[in-house]
Amino acid sequence: MNAVIDHIESRREAHVEDLKTFIAIPSVSTNPERAGDVARCADHCHDSLRDVGFTTVEVVKTGGHPIVYAEWLEAEGAPTVLFYGHYDVQPPDPIELWTSPPFEATVRDGKIYGRGSVDDKGQVLAHWKAWEAHFAVNGRLPCNVKVLLEGEEEIGSESLEPFLVERKTDLAADVILISDSPMFARGVPSLCYGLRGLCYMELHVRGANTDLHSGSFGGAVANPAQALAKILASLKDEDERITIDGFYDRVRPLTDEERDEFARLPFDEEEYKRQLDVSELVGEAGFSTLERTWVRPALDINGMISGFTGDGAKTVLPAEASAKVSMRLVPDQDPEEIARLFAAHVERVTPPGVSVKVAPHHGARAYLAPLDHPANQAAKRALAAAFGAEPVFTREGGSIPITNSFQSTLGLTSILMGFGLPDENAHAPDENLDLDNFHRGIAAAAHFYHEYASGVG
Amino acid sequence: MNAVIDHIESRREAHVEDLKTFIAIPSVSTNPERAGDVARCADHCHDSLRDVGFTTVEVVKTGGHPIVYAEWLEAEGAPTVLFYGHYDVQPPDPIELWTSPPFEATVRDGKIYGRGSVDDKGQVLAHWKAWEAHFAVNGRLPCNVKVLLEGEEEIGSESLEPFLVERKTDLAADVILISDSPMFARGVPSLCYGLRGLCYMELHVRGANTDLHSGSFGGAVANPAQALAKILASLKDEDERITIDGFYDRVRPLTDEERDEFARLPFDEEEYKRQLDVSELVGEAGFSTLERTWVRPALDINGMISGFTGDGAKTVLPAEASAKVSMRLVPDQDPEEIARLFAAHVERVTPPGVSVKVAPHHGARAYLAPLDHPANQAAKRALAAAFGAEPVFTREGGSIPITNSFQSTLGLTSILMGFGLPDENAHAPDENLDLDNFHRGIAAAAHFYHEYASGVG
Repeated sequence: MNAVIDHIESRREAHVEDLKTFIAIPSVSTNPERAGDVARCADHCHDSLRDVGFTTVEVVKTGGHPIVYAEWLEAEGAPTVLFYGHYDVQPPDPIELWTSPPFEATVRDGKIYGRGSVDDKGQVLAHWKAWEAHFAVNGRLPCNVKVLLEGEEEIGSESLEPFLVERKTDLAADVILISDSPMFARGVPSLCYGLRGLCYMELHVRGANTDLHSGSFGGAVANPAQALAKILASLKDEDERITIDGFYDRVRPLTDEERDEFARLPFDEEEYKRQLDVSELVGEAGFSTLERTWVRPALDINGMISGFTGDGAKTVLPAEASAKVSMRLVPDQDPEEIARLFAAHVERVTPPGVSVKVAPHHGARAYLAPLDHPANQAAKRALAAAFGAEPVFTREGGSIPITNSFQSTLGLTSILMGFGLPDENAHAPDENLDLDNFHRGIAAAAHFYHEYASGVG
Repeated sequence: MNAVIDHIESRREAHVEDLKTFIAIPSVSTNPERAGDVARCADHCHDSLRDVGFTTVEVVKTGGHPIVYAEWLEAEGAPTVLFYGHYDVQPPDPIELWTSPPFEATVRDGKIYGRGSVDDKGQVLAHWKAWEAHFAVNGRLPCNVKVLLEGEEEIGSESLEPFLVERKTDLAADVILISDSPMFARGVPSLCYGLRGLCYMELHVRGANTDLHSGSFGGAVANPAQALAKILASLKDEDERITIDGFYDRVRPLTDEERDEFARLPFDEEEYKRQLDVSELVGEAGFSTLERTWVRPALDINGMISGFTGDGAKTVLPAEASAKVSMRLVPDQDPEEIARLFAAHVERVTPPGVSVKVAPHHGARAYLAPLDHPANQAAKRALAAAFGAEPVFTREGGSIPITNSFQSTLGLTSILMGFGLPDENAHAPDENLDLDNFHRGIAAAAHFYHEYASGVG
């Protein structure tokens, strides 16, 4: 491993240049005019993986953008890692807010700025460079590796699920490895082992058959906006507990061990409040902020609208009102069951004089990887070696639907070993990646394949 | 009077033709391209009033559209009526929904269809034709008459208040007469003696300084849409009583006499529900629908918005939420005091973690004319004579701000003697006026000036 790490260290400048080349291809998946660039980026991935040393490399046509697939399976007896990443990027808009051009990556103050630098080209490249080093020094990888790069992650991964189903046998592996998540903080290498699930609902409240003059009818006819407000207000109590009957029934309780782990993390609540510019944090009584966002379910109104919302005043009694409400779920809540409980609650609290329709958008179960999974333990050792600091196990409040697909379709656990920082502007202008983390990320990846092979083999 | 009525009866066809001519001028006040037509319509009013027999007729330039003013003051010892009406009309849009062209008035099934037919050209013309008949038969009017026609009623009457202040002495009169309100129902001649006031508020709720990802932050940060829902839901209790402290303190109680009067009106609650397509009516416990909309205050959400309201799902925790809330007031509520009480309530119930701004739009006091005012009694006799049915005294849930201006600036009571029906599509396509009511309206107007002169003189 020392020779591998030395090789990586000796090529720091070349690695940054390669990242610049990767970023220079504007693979904006949502923009139809960029379809050619997205295809060109897939070809670039294909050629790079072939040059690195993968034996089988293919660009797979889909109904949308191509999937790049590669494999090297000559580590007999060693475990197989399926690496997943994406080569597409978010649009650069609003382009005028960038300090330097989004597709001409620029280094300033130890960071490289450019669209895709942290999400996800820089993190994908870290693994390429780790594989390249292993191949260059040893002529082989420590374990079997399959590489799956998609070009539709930023637009919903529509082609991925069919690909997983169709190529299920080819994709057989021991674990999924993803580097597309943030570190907890600078200097704190992190493994994310849990994600919340989602149940997203829409409500439509209907009153009279047309908008009415609020002077002529006000006081005699139910107001659907008022009814909606009553329904929405009823969803939480004074302690910010969700009041839907049965909502918490399947919630896996927080363990003392988890509580202790989270409490040890360098979380600065005052800084968090300062960044959000709020005077106080509000959440379920009896839980800390990290607990509230990681292991406790939440309910939020994502949008609502009714009546006249322009400037000025209009004396209308609206005919309808609607809202979008989503719930973040934790193990072992079932999104379909929660959708039913939500609908039953709404029906129960709907005031007279209006009718309500409740419809689900999409749902996802929460995801939880076993901390003692050999790959999680290997990743922990790899991060410690590369970053010189004890890694932490974290969870995330959001969802990464792809982890559920990997679990349900391939039956595989995902290891989330990300090298980005929380403030590197993924999806925003001046997206960037810390170069120290980039170089340490390459080393961590190199260690990972070695550690995983050693730990299991 | 018999000769006057005979004169009116003999000229029915000519009256309809004159109404067609009036409607043919597209005096759409809100459309700058129609300013020339509005001015032409003012000139038409001027010429018609001069031809009728008024001694002084002028077109008064304002910052907006002209005001037409006329007077005939030769009825020595008789009272003076200041007639108010408007010659401007609503836009005809959506024009494709009209059965016949909006500015080519067309008679079908005893109704005349055209923009302005009921609001307010037909009702203004009824008075012209009454004056014309008095002048033609007797060479004089029974009482002194001042005529004030404005061209900005549909766009807020901005030029009227300054005109009232400036010409206060010229406008001195005993009473204001307006024909711009609906009859209670077909065959039920009506005098509206009360209007509700208004207190219109806007609320802005602010959470964090930016929209947040509801996955990452949901459960830990206050959601302004949820806070707004709590605030709005708190404004009424289960009995639909408004919960704002002190809100009902000045509300003038319903008298037994009023309750009996309203109960006698031919109000069909089942038909009302059927037209609105609602399964039940919802309002303050202990009051009937007419009481709820006429003599009890009301509170309605007129609009609200927060977060993502497009199609589909977006997992956003919004940074802000806002709502418009208006309260219809009754005697003796004070809009400024109600605005203060509202703001105090909002402040009291605002949950932690958000800030709220409350700002008033416009306000108006409720209006109430004395039933025993000689002009109301004269109007009652006039309607009975012209319609052959006992008139009813009604109130309106809406506001007519001009009645407050007449009260506050000129110190005068307004008599609201309208000849329209509730379903004649004022402000909508296929606006129309029942021709039987039009002709009876002319006769009622003729009777009114006679009755008022007799009753007082």
